Amino acid sequence: MPRYRIEVEYDGTPFCGWQRQSNGYSVQEALEDAGAALSQGPAMAMGAGRTDSGVHAIAMTAHIDIEKDMPADTVRDGLNFYMRAHPATVLTAEPVSDDWHARFCCTQRHYLYRVLRRRARPALLANRVWQVASPLDVEAMAQGAAHLVGKHDFTTFRSANCQSASPVKTLNEISVTTEGEEIHFRLSARSFLHNQVRSFVGTLIQVGLGKWTPDNVKTALEAADRTACGPVAPASGLYFVKADYDEPI
Amino acid sequence: MPRYRIEVEYDGTPFCGWQRQSNGYSVQEALEDAGAALSQGPAMAMGAGRTDSGVHAIAMTAHIDIEKDMPADTVRDGLNFYMRAHPATVLTAEPVSDDWHARFCCTQRHYLYRVLRRRARPALLANRVWQVASPLDVEAMAQGAAHLVGKHDFTTFRSANCQSASPVKTLNEISVTTEGEEIHFRLSARSFLHNQVRSFVGTLIQVGLGKWTPDNVKTALEAADRTACGPVAPASGLYFVKADYDEPI
Repeated sequence: MPRYRIEVEYDGTPFCGWQRQSNGYSVQEALEDAGAALSQGPAMAMGAGRTDSGVHAIAMTAHIDIEKDMPADTVRDGLNFYMRAHPATVLTAEPVSDDWHARFCCTQRHYLYRVLRRRARPALLANRVWQVASPLDVEAMAQGAAHLVGKHDFTTFRSANCQSASPVKTLNEISVTTEGEEIHFRLSARSFLHNQVRSFVGTLIQVGLGKWTPDNVKTALEAADRTACGPVAPASGLYFVKADYDEPI
Repeated sequence: MPRYRIEVEYDGTPFCGWQRQSNGYSVQEALEDAGAALSQGPAMAMGAGRTDSGVHAIAMTAHIDIEKDMPADTVRDGLNFYMRAHPATVLTAEPVSDDWHARFCCTQRHYLYRVLRRRARPALLANRVWQVASPLDVEAMAQGAAHLVGKHDFTTFRSANCQSASPVKTLNEISVTTEGEEIHFRLSARSFLHNQVRSFVGTLIQVGLGKWTPDNVKTALEAADRTACGPVAPASGLYFVKADYDEPI
């Protein structure tokens, strides 16, 4: 079957997440339904990462196998035509070889978490941010975040449902910056554990609120105990930004 | 009745516009319903401008008269509590005197129009931009826009439903800039005619597409004839940004 590399933007709000599930409609299922309609045969899609219900993507890289060979622009426009009822859109499509794999070839994943720091709930950014009404100390959050960089056992920041073989991962980068009314957390790693970013952000917000010291983040990390984690931040503020690959395709 | 100056952010998508109407729910009605619930009496709201159905506000200034005197923070939070089912949110509230009027005291209004210049339809920005798939010449649009600055008879760019006494207005500023995948049109004037911004943008897009020359905009303006206008741009890309006032309140 011909394989295409695609980049997909989606609003995660109405989806049960990236991954096909029995309890709701997923982005994967929307893509496979569209691919099947377009190529009049079975279609299979695989993403660089999985996102939970309510989590968004600015550009999720995926591959999709469809029944027929078509020009890449036809694949992009055709998938978008059949997905037009859903808030997911294919930004780019390129033909790739059978052994190119969106998940296994990915060398780094980037996430963004957006906090709206103000009293009034969002109207234009409803379901796009986590609104926090109380003042936040950005400098303290950045100090707390610095403890998380590097190779660690991240058991504390891992969902009980996480399917990863090991809790040991390497966080390449985490930044905390102010952007107007928002605070942005940007994270990069080869791979992430389930709920890792939301667990980090929820914990760092405790530091921002002054309930935790920056060093409490180190203590929680070293505990390697899920109960040491702060409250998990809501899905609405999280964005899969992009996936990196080594080889030119 | 105590009067409060408020700033309101709203997603215009589900509303019939700012102004109370019989054919749908308006932002004004949402505010007045919330004000009535909060103060257990009649409430009246008046905005600096009116926006059509689907047009958004980053910060619409308004005043609202309610039955009871309350701390301004209670007014803000109380209005937001009662409007929680709607995508409208009160950003600020301050007490003002009876003779302060959101519409009549306003000295300048600012609008933003967002065009998403790409092939794929928007997912994260659905209902927030006008997506244009074809290439656009930003420099040519800026040249066309320059003809519109100053005091003119804007009959060409005025809806047939416009209730303004005169078609002569002064456009203080119009800029056309590239912001990533978007093109932003920013406009400032003491007041605008009905559909004026959307008529400008729809016409300038004709220039951007190369169907009109920049000088055709001047010809259309001088015709003072509604039929000389380009197609009116959709509501989804338009934002009321803010209103200016002279006096400190």
